[in-house]
Parts: sequence; structure tokens; C-alpha cells
Amino acid sequence: MAASFTHLDEEGRVRMVDITSKEPTVREARAEGAIRMSPELLDMVVCGKVPKGNVFETARIAGIMAAKKTADLIPLCHPLQLTAVSLDFTVDRKLPGVHITAIVRTTDRTGVEMEALTAVSVAALTVYDMCKALDKTMTIDQIRLVYKSGGKSGVFVRDG
Amino acid sequence: MAASFTHLDEEGRVRMVDITSKEPTVREARAEGAIRMSPELLDMVVCGKVPKGNVFETARIAGIMAAKKTADLIPLCHPLQLTAVSLDFTVDRKLPGVHITAIVRTTDRTGVEMEALTAVSVAALTVYDMCKALDKTMTIDQIRLVYKSGGKSGVFVRDG
Amino acid sequence: MAASFTHLDEEGRVRMVDITSKEPTVREARAEGAIRMSPELLDMVVCGKVPKGNVFETARIAGIMAAKKTADLIPLCHPLQLTAVSLDFTVDRKLPGVHITAIVRTTDRTGVEMEALTAVSVAALTVYDMCKALDKTMTIDQIRLVYKSGGKSGVFVRDG
Amino acid sequence: MAASFTHLDEEGRVRMVDITSKEPTVREARAEGAIRMSPELLDMVVCGKVPKGNVFETARIAGIMAAKKTADLIPLCHPLQLTAVSLDFTVDRKLPGVHITAIVRTTDRTGVEMEALTAVSVAALTVYDMCKALDKTMTIDQIRLVYKSGGKSGVFVRDG
Amino acid sequence: MAASFTHLDEEGRVRMVDITSKEPTVREARAEGAIRMSPELLDMVVCGKVPKGNVFETARIAGIMAAKKTADLIPLCHPLQLTAVSLDFTVDRKLPGVHITAIVRTTDRTGVEMEALTAVSVAALTVYDMCKALDKTMTIDQIRLVYKSGGKSGVFVRDG
Amino acid sequence: MAASFTHLDEEGRVRMVDITSKEPTVREARAEGAIRMSPELLDMVVCGKVPKGNVFETARIAGIMAAKKTADLIPLCHPLQLTAVSLDFTVDRKLPGVHITAIVRTTDRTGVEMEALTAVSVAALTVYDMCKALDKTMTIDQIRLVYKSGGKSGVFVRDG
Repeated sequence: MAASFTHLDEEGRVRMVDITSKEPTVREARAEGAIRMSPELLDMVVCGKVPKGNVFETARIAGIMAAKKTADLIPLCHPLQLTAVSLDFTVDRKLPGVHITAIVRTTDRTGVEMEALTAVSVAALTVYDMCKALDKTMTIDQIRLVYKSGGKSGVFVRDG
Repeated sequence: MAASFTHLDEEGRVRMVDITSKEPTVREARAEGAIRMSPELLDMVVCGKVPKGNVFETARIAGIMAAKKTADLIPLCHPLQLTAVSLDFTVDRKLPGVHITAIVRTTDRTGVEMEALTAVSVAALTVYDMCKALDKTMTIDQIRLVYKSGGKSGVFVRDG
Repeated sequence: MAASFTHLDEEGRVRMVDITSKEPTVREARAEGAIRMSPELLDMVVCGKVPKGNVFETARIAGIMAAKKTADLIPLCHPLQLTAVSLDFTVDRKLPGVHITAIVRTTDRTGVEMEALTAVSVAALTVYDMCKALDKTMTIDQIRLVYKSGGKSGVFVRDG
Repeated sequence: MAASFTHLDEEGRVRMVDITSKEPTVREARAEGAIRMSPELLDMVVCGKVPKGNVFETARIAGIMAAKKTADLIPLCHPLQLTAVSLDFTVDRKLPGVHITAIVRTTDRTGVEMEALTAVSVAALTVYDMCKALDKTMTIDQIRLVYKSGGKSGVFVRDG
Repeated sequence: MAASFTHLDEEGRVRMVDITSKEPTVREARAEGAIRMSPELLDMVVCGKVPKGNVFETARIAGIMAAKKTADLIPLCHPLQLTAVSLDFTVDRKLPGVHITAIVRTTDRTGVEMEALTAVSVAALTVYDMCKALDKTMTIDQIRLVYKSGGKSGVFVRDG
Repeated sequence: MAASFTHLDEEGRVRMVDITSKEPTVREARAEGAIRMSPELLDMVVCGKVPKGNVFETARIAGIMAAKKTADLIPLCHPLQLTAVSLDFTVDRKLPGVHITAIVRTTDRTGVEMEALTAVSVAALTVYDMCKALDKTMTIDQIRLVYKSGGKSGVFVRDG
């Protein structure tokens, strides 16, 4: 484990990390998360008369747009020019619920972990919003970074 | 369970629910969530030389500001004039990690569940951002609505 | 025709009109517009292997979100709390192209014409964006207010 | 005509096109549009006691600021660092109305067509907003791309 | 002087003040500020070949738009629906420089001091931006609240 | 003094300066400002029961976030990818009040003066907001550029 908080200086004051002297490199981050719901609601989302595409497509668009707003939401994030954002949704009847994955890429001086995590979070919130009239007990869970590449710190792959 | 998705019309097209004819009433929503981290990192956040206040205060401010951006993040949310937003952080060594609670109030035509859930989500993402140089395996978990009052649908209290 | 520009004072300086003393009333505005495209592209959007829903659903979401940003885009617009936004798309093979309609409602001190016109404009731009790799000669046309109610000036219905 | 929608994957799901591996090049786009109005209103905008500069200057500023918001408005647009934005207004008594032109430049991995079209659209909406108390029948028309250079696809010039 | 910081709770944690139970009333705030510059630059702004209107009109528009963004800029400000915003510029050759005044009104549960102060600040920054190629030594000065009415605390008028 | 306003063309129309052909270089800007307050309030901020960190930390975060919004606030500013933002607060009992300094860096085609000045301005406004229930007579003063490096125009250091 590294020795200190990069976002706090020696006196504990918040700061944006200085990345001026870093070289731009291709960077990618993948994040995952899930939204648990009742099996009845999951049925409605997936097989009901309502086209399933629309809940997921709206969440997908919300996630893509949120990735672009990351630096506006997370106080100490650097503004980055994202070159790719994609989200995917997988129905899991055992959960029961939906797994969400986001992949973000850039060619820049710092990584895009926060952008991928933000995309997953806002996509999950959007699924919640669209289904909440049917079930308010949904839970957003297991939002985490699963892969990161590019930059000095090298490749990170989450186990399990 | 209600019969249909409010955010999709009969043909499955997305829409913003029409609340024009609803009366403004006092509304409150409370949401919770948690961020799990290694015990070592939790120690650094809580008892280290670094003032714990700053990680949590930054996350608190990010959560408050995010609540105000909810209608900009979640495609079908109505713009609402929030009259109160507060966030709280509780360290849980058994988790190990931090519990986050948000309370949001308004006097308006629809509820503030999404605002409370968004505040918790962005606060958790901000804790992640500030600690990620130390530990990338943190997980954001258990984001859910725990209380809601105001409006026709009455009081919702989540069990357990 | 009225006698003067409401958004300019006697000396021609821009200002936001003072609506402080107006009473909130229910207001509605409807705007229309069209995007013309080649018959080949229209075929691809409507009947191709690609689900037509996704171009229109993305444009619909973009239009709804843009309506909420109107006061941030149009310098002298008042911030308003929209209570309903919906958009509709109609394929017109004679045009050839797509007609876009937006309906916006609020209970507030001024009208929502600009919100409806902005929703149509951004929905049309989004259709353009999603199809531009196939055809750059699309034209956005005939964006206009067709209906307005609420407020002192009464109902406006556009002829023809 | 190209073979497929770049913004939809093989299964029709929306995505942001991956431009990670493209090289930054100088890019320029020019878009045009018009706002039609009654000859009486055009006279007031152009020769009236009210300085015409202010309607057009406000619309010009709105168009420049909107170009910078394009990635926030159009769901699948990449965030780009614009290096130049300018707008021009030409009175056309035959229309009768005003022609609007926008030129946008960047040195980046994808083109700025959407930025130029967004600048024209929002400038036209701003003219509408400033004049709507005088005439609600104005129509925004003929918004289209007229020139594009830079990138692999080469120069595009619209005929007629 | 009041006894405590409204934006910090008993333990010093930041919060948005809870205004849920307050009644909406008409509120107004006026703020002032100045930008000092060399007499040569002031001459260019006022009497030069360059129309003075454009520097001030651009700053005026920026100030009006910034007032609408106040809750997005100042972390603990409530989102408010402004019903009027106006700015004025007065040349002062003795300063030498320009005085800026902003008046903001709303009918809401809390005051608009921050909106008026933000409008003045951003208008002054915009004047700086437009003139900085000519003189980087300009100073923004004396930004302060001069009048406030509405709400329980009554009328505030600054002396001197 | 230079010969003309870069943000106005020969006919006085506003424009965003064209920086397309400039090379990216490392750039830094430092700005300062102050907020004057009564000695009693300054005591409360600094030594009172309320942790001083929270007023300043909130203002620091607001300043950092505002620097990232500069191109959205100042009409003719280019969007830039900031690589470092930091703010510092120094208590001055003689003023009496607080001095605020901001340092901003980027590697881009134009300077970051406006970003540094915006960071100071919004940090000062945030201090005002957090203390205004105690004292409305605070004044924001002496906001100015003190240092600038990078780009063709070379190093600027403000005297005195």
C-alpha cells in the first residue's frame, strides 16, 4: 500500500494532484456494479410488454453522459477528454437483478477509473429511477473497479 | 406492485412523468450506502496523521452538490428546488468501511428519492477517488432508499 | 405587434425580464421541427436491421434533457421547474425525413416556448449526430412554435 | 453511403465511437441556418431604435457558449477542446430574416460538425427568445453543415 | 452579531441550511464591485474605435448567466428560481475603472445575496478576460452586498 | 500596451480567439485576492469552536471546482484541460481578513489566467456565503493576476 493520500497535502488540505509533467498515454478502465430487484420486477423489465431495451438504453445513455461529467461531480478529478465510453447490461436471475459494466478510454495524463465508476453508478441510478414506481426496495451493489491499464502504475486486475 | 412503468408510455417510449396537476407538499427522502475498504486504509482515513475530516468533508460537499445536479444526471428526473441536503458518515470497523446517509427535503410536486440516492452515490465515489492511490479494491455497496415521506403514496420505510 | 423588445431596456441593454410580480399559472408550449434526409438513409433508420427505436429514443432523451438546460443555454431565459416534457417522432416519406414534436408544461410565472423549441432543436441535432457518418447533407428545418397556453397573453395557435 | 450507424453497435445499442487510436489533426466545420421573421420585425431588429447589435451580439455569445457545451447536450459526442468559434449574422430582406453561420476549429481526434451545428441552433433560438414578445411565428430553418475538413474522411463541401 | 455559522452544524460539519419550513416571499439583493484599470485602457474601452457596448454587453450577459449558475458554484447555496437579474456598468475616470452593479429578485424561501455577488464577480472577470491582452494589471475590487430585502431578517442597507 | 482587443474583431464583434495554430506548452498562472471581515468574525473563523478548516476547506473545494468551470462561465474562454489547481488561505489580522491564492497549471495552447482568477473569486464568494449570517458587510477585494508563465508572451510578474 502506498504511503499517503495523493489528494491531501502534508497538512491535510485537499488539492488536485499535479499531473503537468506526466506524458499522455492510452488509458483504459473497466468498472462493474449491479442493481438487485425483486424477481417480479426483473421479469417486467426483461420479458414484459414494455420493451426491455428502453430501460437499459436510457440507463446506457445516462451512463455515457455521466462519464463526461465526472470532473464536474468529483471535486478533485482532472478534466479529461474521453475517447470511448461503452456500457453493458446483463440480466442475472439468480441475483436477481442486472449487472452493469462500463469501459472508458482516453489518451491523457491520468487514468479514467472515476469515469468508469461514475458511468456505472449513474446507469444504476437511472434503472432505479425508471423502475421505482414499481419497487422502491431495489439496491445498488458491488460498484468496483475491475481493470485499469496505462500510466506508470501499470495494469490493475481485480481478483474475484 | 404497481401495474406499469411510469417513465414509459403505452408504446414503451421514455417520457418525463407529467406532474403538472399535483400539489406541492413537503417531501423527504433518506438513502444509505457504504464503501468497503481494507482495515489498513480505514485506519489511515480515521486515525492517521491525515485529518479524517477532510476526506469526509470533501465527500460531503460533493454529495450536496450532486444532489443539486440530479435532474441533469438522471434523464427523466424533474428539476426540483431542494430546501435541505445533509450527509453523514459513520465508520464501521466490522464492515470494514464507512456508511453514508443522505437526507434531502423539498416542498414540491414529486419526491426526492433520486436526489438522496445520487448524493450517497457521489459521496461514495468521492471517498473512492480520494483513497484510490492507496487501495483500488474498495467497493461501493448497499445503496438504497430507507425512508420517504410526502405525496400521495405516503410514507415508505425500508425493513431491515 | 407589440411595441418593443422585452429583453432590451430603453437604452438597448440586455436584461432578464422581471417576472417577480406575476402569478404562477399552468402553462404549456408545443413546438415542431423536421430533419430532412435522403430516402436511403430514412429507410435505414426506419426499416433497416438497426432498431429504429434507438435513434429516436436517444434523440428523445437528449431532447428531454435539453429542455431542462434551456435557462443555461439561452442567456435571458428564466430558470423554470418543468413538470412535463415529451417528444414524438413521425416518419414522413414524402419529406423525406422525420417530424419532431415537443410538449412542455410548467406551473410558473412565464411560458415554456423556449424549452419546447430547445427540446426539438437538440433532438434534431442528435438524429443528425447519429446518422452523420451515413449522410452529411441532412437539413434541420421548420422549427417553430405551434401552440402556447397559460399566462396573460392567452392561447397562441399557429396557423398552417 | 457508408454501411452502418457508427453510434450503434451490431445489436443496435448506442455507444460513443472509439477514437482512441486516431491521431489529432486540425479540423474545421462550418454550419449555416436561418431564422425567418416578418418584414416588420426584421425592420425593428435592423433599423429600429433598438441597437441591432444587441440582439445579434447576445445570440453570438449564446452560440459560442453552446458550442462549448455540445458534448453535454448531444449524448454520444466526444468532449473536444475547441480552439476557435465564430458566428456571423447576415440580414436577408428577401427571406425575410437572418442567416447565421458558425465556424468551429479544433486540433483533435474527431470532427466538430456537431459543435458548429449546435452553435447555429442555439444562436437562432436566442434570436427567437429576444424577439418572441413581438412575433411568435418566426421559424428556424435550413440548419445544415456546409463545410468540413480534417481527419481521414477528407473535405466535405455541400452543394447548393 | 449572530451566534453561529449557519452552514456548519454543532460539530463543524458543512450542511445546506434547512429552509423547508420557510414561506416564499419576494426577495431582492443588490451587489456592487469595480474593476480598476489604467486610464489608457479605460479610454480604449470607452471612447476607442472598439464599440464600448460589446465589452460591457458581453460582461452583462456573463453576469446574468452566472447568477443562474450560483447554486452550481457555491457549494451550500440552495437552487432558486430567479425572477429578475440586471447588471449595470458605470465608467469612473477617477478610479480609474468601471463600477458594476447587479440586482437580483426572486419569490422564494431564502435570499439572493450570493446570486447578486456572483453576477458582479463573473461580470468583472469577463471584463478582465476581454481586456487582458492589453493590460494584465487590472484589479477586481470592492465586491460587496449593498442592499437586501425580503425574509425574516428584514432590510439590510450597507453604509458608505 | 498592445494595439487592440483580441476578443473583438475589426468591427467590434465578439469572438473566441483562434488558437488553432499555437503549440501546447506548459503554462502556469497565479492569482490573489482577499476577503475583508470584522475582527470579531475573523476570530470566529480562526479560533472559535467551529473548526476553521471547514470554512476554508469548503472554499478551497469550491475554488478548485470553479476553475474547472471557467470556460462555462467566461463567454470567450477556451476549454482547457487543467493539470493542477491549488488554493491557499492566509489569515491577516491587520486586514482584517483572509488572503486567497490560487495556482493553476496546464499544458495547452493558451494561458490559465482566467482559471486562477475564477478560482480565487469563487473561493472568496464561498467564504462570504458561509459567514454571511454573521456579518453581511464583508468585502471581496484585490483580485488580481500576480504571475503567469508559458506561451509566447513570456513571464508576467506583477509588481507590488
